[in-house]
Amino acid sequence: MNPDSYFQLNRTIHEKGRLAIMSLLAGANDLSFTELRNTLKMTDGNLSMHIRTLQQAGYLSVTKQYLKRRPLTTCSLTSEGRASFGQYINLLEKIVMDNRPGSSGEKD
Amino acid sequence: MNPDSYFQLNRTIHEKGRLAIMSLLAGANDLSFTELRNTLKMTDGNLSMHIRTLQQAGYLSVTKQYLKRRPLTTCSLTSEGRASFGQYINLLEKIVMDNRPGSSGEKD
Repeated sequence: MNPDSYFQLNRTIHEKGRLAIMSLLAGANDLSFTELRNTLKMTDGNLSMHIRTLQQAGYLSVTKQYLKRRPLTTCSLTSEGRASFGQYINLLEKIVMDNRPGSSGEKD
Repeated sequence: MNPDSYFQLNRTIHEKGRLAIMSLLAGANDLSFTELRNTLKMTDGNLSMHIRTLQQAGYLSVTKQYLKRRPLTTCSLTSEGRASFGQYINLLEKIVMDNRPGSSGEKD
């Protein structure tokens, strides 16, 4: 078992809530704040905090507009966010493989 | 994509350092504190803290003995720890599958 895999796990993405947000956005072009909140059953404050963290990391972009005079906030992954998420999932896959019974990873 | 997978991730195991410790112990009967520390390049304080957290969760047992008059601390997974780690890895695998391009998970 090579401990490097574990330390390479992107801390920003690894947090459970942010991992769920990134995963939802990776499967969509964009999602509104309300869609994210309702799907993930997060509070406004909690979701806002995670979005800000992901935005500051350059992984997520936020668009604010008005639709029928009501404010609409939508989020989407940046290309950097999409690439970092892909790397993160590759690393998770490696960790899963290393921990399967009979894998050579177990004996390293 | 079903957000339940993300929320079911065991928070005690999900932390990077503890995930590395659990993974090392899952592949061995037991390891000494020194072996863990050297493999994971953690400080004594950091490793002790993670071991205590895993011990309190019932996942890890610690044995203290003397070998040639020198203290020897060894750690091993409990059966509960081994079962919880197995469940955690199964969930990670599901997350990886759901996030593979072309997976149905992406379109849920």
